[in-house]
Amino acid sequence: MNTFGKNFRVTTFGESHGKALGAVIDGCPACLGLSETDIQPLLDRRRPGASPLSSPRRERDSVTILSGVFEGKTTGAPIALLVQNEEAQSEDYGEIRDTFRPGHADFTYFMKYGIRDHRGGGRSSGRETVGRVAAGAIAMKILKQHGITISGRILEVHGKRSDKDFEKEILAVKEAGDSVGGIAEITAHDCPAGLGDPVFGKLDALIAGAMMGIGAVKGVEIGDGFAAAKRYGSENNDQMTEDGFSSNHAGGILGGISSGQDIVVRIAVKPTPSIAKVQQTRDIHGNVVEISVKGRHDPCIVPRIIPVAEAMLALVLTDCVLESGKYQKH
Amino acid sequence: MNTFGKNFRVTTFGESHGKALGAVIDGCPACLGLSETDIQPLLDRRRPGASPLSSPRRERDSVTILSGVFEGKTTGAPIALLVQNEEAQSEDYGEIRDTFRPGHADFTYFMKYGIRDHRGGGRSSGRETVGRVAAGAIAMKILKQHGITISGRILEVHGKRSDKDFEKEILAVKEAGDSVGGIAEITAHDCPAGLGDPVFGKLDALIAGAMMGIGAVKGVEIGDGFAAAKRYGSENNDQMTEDGFSSNHAGGILGGISSGQDIVVRIAVKPTPSIAKVQQTRDIHGNVVEISVKGRHDPCIVPRIIPVAEAMLALVLTDCVLESGKYQKH
Amino acid sequence: MNTFGKNFRVTTFGESHGKALGAVIDGCPACLGLSETDIQPLLDRRRPGASPLSSPRRERDSVTILSGVFEGKTTGAPIALLVQNEEAQSEDYGEIRDTFRPGHADFTYFMKYGIRDHRGGGRSSGRETVGRVAAGAIAMKILKQHGITISGRILEVHGKRSDKDFEKEILAVKEAGDSVGGIAEITAHDCPAGLGDPVFGKLDALIAGAMMGIGAVKGVEIGDGFAAAKRYGSENNDQMTEDGFSSNHAGGILGGISSGQDIVVRIAVKPTPSIAKVQQTRDIHGNVVEISVKGRHDPCIVPRIIPVAEAMLALVLTDCVLESGKYQKH
Amino acid sequence: MNTFGKNFRVTTFGESHGKALGAVIDGCPACLGLSETDIQPLLDRRRPGASPLSSPRRERDSVTILSGVFEGKTTGAPIALLVQNEEAQSEDYGEIRDTFRPGHADFTYFMKYGIRDHRGGGRSSGRETVGRVAAGAIAMKILKQHGITISGRILEVHGKRSDKDFEKEILAVKEAGDSVGGIAEITAHDCPAGLGDPVFGKLDALIAGAMMGIGAVKGVEIGDGFAAAKRYGSENNDQMTEDGFSSNHAGGILGGISSGQDIVVRIAVKPTPSIAKVQQTRDIHGNVVEISVKGRHDPCIVPRIIPVAEAMLALVLTDCVLESGKYQKH
Repeated sequence: MNTFGKNFRVTTFGESHGKALGAVIDGCPACLGLSETDIQPLLDRRRPGASPLSSPRRERDSVTILSGVFEGKTTGAPIALLVQNEEAQSEDYGEIRDTFRPGHADFTYFMKYGIRDHRGGGRSSGRETVGRVAAGAIAMKILKQHGITISGRILEVHGKRSDKDFEKEILAVKEAGDSVGGIAEITAHDCPAGLGDPVFGKLDALIAGAMMGIGAVKGVEIGDGFAAAKRYGSENNDQMTEDGFSSNHAGGILGGISSGQDIVVRIAVKPTPSIAKVQQTRDIHGNVVEISVKGRHDPCIVPRIIPVAEAMLALVLTDCVLESGKYQKH
Repeated sequence: MNTFGKNFRVTTFGESHGKALGAVIDGCPACLGLSETDIQPLLDRRRPGASPLSSPRRERDSVTILSGVFEGKTTGAPIALLVQNEEAQSEDYGEIRDTFRPGHADFTYFMKYGIRDHRGGGRSSGRETVGRVAAGAIAMKILKQHGITISGRILEVHGKRSDKDFEKEILAVKEAGDSVGGIAEITAHDCPAGLGDPVFGKLDALIAGAMMGIGAVKGVEIGDGFAAAKRYGSENNDQMTEDGFSSNHAGGILGGISSGQDIVVRIAVKPTPSIAKVQQTRDIHGNVVEISVKGRHDPCIVPRIIPVAEAMLALVLTDCVLESGKYQKH
Repeated sequence: MNTFGKNFRVTTFGESHGKALGAVIDGCPACLGLSETDIQPLLDRRRPGASPLSSPRRERDSVTILSGVFEGKTTGAPIALLVQNEEAQSEDYGEIRDTFRPGHADFTYFMKYGIRDHRGGGRSSGRETVGRVAAGAIAMKILKQHGITISGRILEVHGKRSDKDFEKEILAVKEAGDSVGGIAEITAHDCPAGLGDPVFGKLDALIAGAMMGIGAVKGVEIGDGFAAAKRYGSENNDQMTEDGFSSNHAGGILGGISSGQDIVVRIAVKPTPSIAKVQQTRDIHGNVVEISVKGRHDPCIVPRIIPVAEAMLALVLTDCVLESGKYQKH
Repeated sequence: MNTFGKNFRVTTFGESHGKALGAVIDGCPACLGLSETDIQPLLDRRRPGASPLSSPRRERDSVTILSGVFEGKTTGAPIALLVQNEEAQSEDYGEIRDTFRPGHADFTYFMKYGIRDHRGGGRSSGRETVGRVAAGAIAMKILKQHGITISGRILEVHGKRSDKDFEKEILAVKEAGDSVGGIAEITAHDCPAGLGDPVFGKLDALIAGAMMGIGAVKGVEIGDGFAAAKRYGSENNDQMTEDGFSSNHAGGILGGISSGQDIVVRIAVKPTPSIAKVQQTRDIHGNVVEISVKGRHDPCIVPRIIPVAEAMLALVLTDCVLESGKYQKH
């Protein structure tokens, strides 16, 4: 299942060290102004090598639109986006060819497929999100037409809340050959009421699935999330006022449908599993071995996950906006 | 979207005070022994009126299999399950006909559809889960054939962890006309490695969507979840041993695919929004009014949500088990 | 796959001799006036026993709306429709319990599922179309709001074109213990241009799939169909005039998208396979045996297939109408 | 909807004169040997310029696998296939920029999208089938593992049945600036019994949708198709013998499920709408104008449609083979 969405459908492809990565977007409305310059800035935010906090792998991640755009406008045909891998062949991953990295998808891919593209994680690599971010950029253009914007921020790194602490924390942990996790918060602003479906297609269900579908995410909250579980109903209910609500504990979603308030999502990001510290693991022959993962890995993935999570929220909301169009009076 | 699943597809229907509730299950393997007695016990666990902790509404929730079973075995045809509503007409919901209950789906349904079946919450009522639990019972029969079992438990009510505390807590809050939330944990035991897809169809993504699609759930964690965000990679990685793993921080899922360890899911359940305490709200004409919700509401939904969450996990896993069958050598 | 459609989704259930048949409709717009009286007349047209040309089985096929309608209007919740089987238990099908009727689904169901509800064909019976016709009635109400109407007619029975001939033909063949096929034509009038998708989701592709999905249909044509294969392009192209087209060889669809002309579909219906004439066949133990199929079978299914084919065309068009709504400026 | 299939999912992209065409295949089993040399021969069969009967446009249609294959084997990750357009920019389509070609998708695309890539038909061009044929080549490799093969042949051109006649016919019609249609027959050999679903997902329904989804196809028949409509049941039923059937009027499908006999499909192909002969049409401003379509068009598309129809049948059957795997005992 490499396709996301029902109306605005995104199919991604590509591996960390394959020839190219990309996405095909199907269901994009026609007559939307679109060029590579709408997409590139978001890819640049996601790109490695941009700060001392991230992996030193250097990729330009330069996007090309292969189809679906004619004279600067979308035609309704599928939009294929392509990003070539440049550093793909330069690295030696031979040492992990037969060894499962702890906490990584190596073992489960091998159990599922009986084969594994071990080079840089193959399809399980964070590079797979290139296609998501590119598609998300188009989604955001559509959302903007409906007045909706999306923003994300780091909330916590390794339990620390302040911005100053977490930079120091990440550099220290990098030095130590270890990694750390954190929490990010993504918000959709000015979302109209009425998006999302009751029951299985609840807006929060779609968002939770979208977020948990990002590698390294281990928890998702909407609004107050787990804190709500510790409250009285009289504290947690958002009472209504003349022109809205007196609070937003619900995070903008009631009964699976947007209420018109900000949609607030938080995600728990685990520490990157690829660390230099020596760990015990197994190889494909069943031998218990020790491993110290080399390579250019991020000591903390939280900063780079934000554009990805924003893109996923954009994809969900675009899908819902198109869905709700079906039922409007024309 | 009242259909869940790709291979084992469940479509639910019915409202709190309509004629009947039910589900149609499509994609169930043929030749599975099945009768109402496989389903009824799970419905009985979900049923209201069974304990002083739950709503006093009394429904037998007696299930009938309408189709898809012949001489005690499934035929491969869709299985329609029906539960009649019995107390449907007996209650007076007139007072909330035009008023939105705070924290409830009333407002958003009205914004989405321009019409609202206000009787007992209509489709947004917890009674909708009757169809899910009934379908889940069939899913569990299939999982059992693959050796997989599912269990759930209350972890926390209103911040209290011990079993003794939370009964007292719930009765006290009921007395006060208020409600409380809590946390439940659902575990799948003896799940084979290899279930779930990479990227958007990750097993944890499917589970997160399934859980967040249950009314009142505001957060989902897999394995250590939000706690993992506070750890070092060297602490959080589950190192491998000769015959498994030395820990299960990951909750049985790596890279979106099951690892063969227990799959551990936690959900945050908000306090029931329908409370007797006076709250401020709005009516459909835009007037700010006060409301004290009458009716037979659960002061804490956590105990009754457990069979629902177990059912949803069973639906996800059954879908993945069937999916993985496609790619096995025959 | 007992679900049809992407936006207006119909899931049918039930067997010839099970407890009940029905359908769940998901995605129906809210606020549509709806009651059983909108649906019953179409079921009555499909019903057996209405004329000497059809099976003498007598069913009232009385429909009940179980959910999704409140105070006479749809709510946006799934609409469950139920029709009880009345004559279900009265017939003896023991003689075909272990024998495959030639030309029937008996053999292939048994090969696929390893089990078979032999009573009256089970799920493969024409009674399965009860759910389709009921759902189609709702679709037609939606289409009517968009000005679209659907009509069907018998074009040919056993090669004869005139109305008078085919009644005589059917009664004669019934007498002889045999059956005959024929051709039906279904037309959608006043369909707007722009329905349908390019490539795989072409309107004619959706229609062809819908029609071929009706039991006994062995061929589908759009517009001139097979006759177009014998023409020059200069004959077959519909030239354009100031306010339309000079002809409608294309049957209202160009490049998979409706052109605004009448949509014209023809279906080839095979002779009913269940005949009294002695035929050679096999039983489930592999023995070659002779069979003379007893029971109340239609000597020619063409008249009764028309409301079913109309319903299927209505389902396809309603789905496309909703789909196209997504992309309209609001 | 540029995606086909449920289990073996093919998403195509690209326009006649865009940068590139291609397909992403999702759901391909892992460990299948695959390289460009498996795909290229089928693209070569479809390619223009190969015979005097086809368009003189010269494209190498050289395919590159961008992802999903590692060390010569599929990994379970999506397989992206790319074919660059080479002659894309060389032609002048200015004359049809504002004019709708009769019988072509020009008018309906413009009505649907409000924008049209007029260059060579854009997305509605036959070049779109490059992605289908490439994907079909992979499907055929999978089918071969199950012993299934597919073949196609021209049955009729402009009403003529013999091979000798139709070559002469096509060259004559080309000379006259006109075009002709015809009939093709596609057969799947050695298909196991049990493929396909009852009701909406009937194997013949899937095939009919797949075939009618090919541009220029206006009719589809299974087995004897329209001829069956003129028969008695006693003639049309395929009686069973000790080890099979005494005939194959049904074309290998009973009740929507394969019977183990050859699956026989016939398609009616209309004459190419783009002809040099002067026709009356309209432009986008509403003026009635005359048009003589220039460009390198096929005078008869039947020969080149055969690899496309074979590919579509391969896609349908592969999807069904994978689907049926879900329900097999492991």
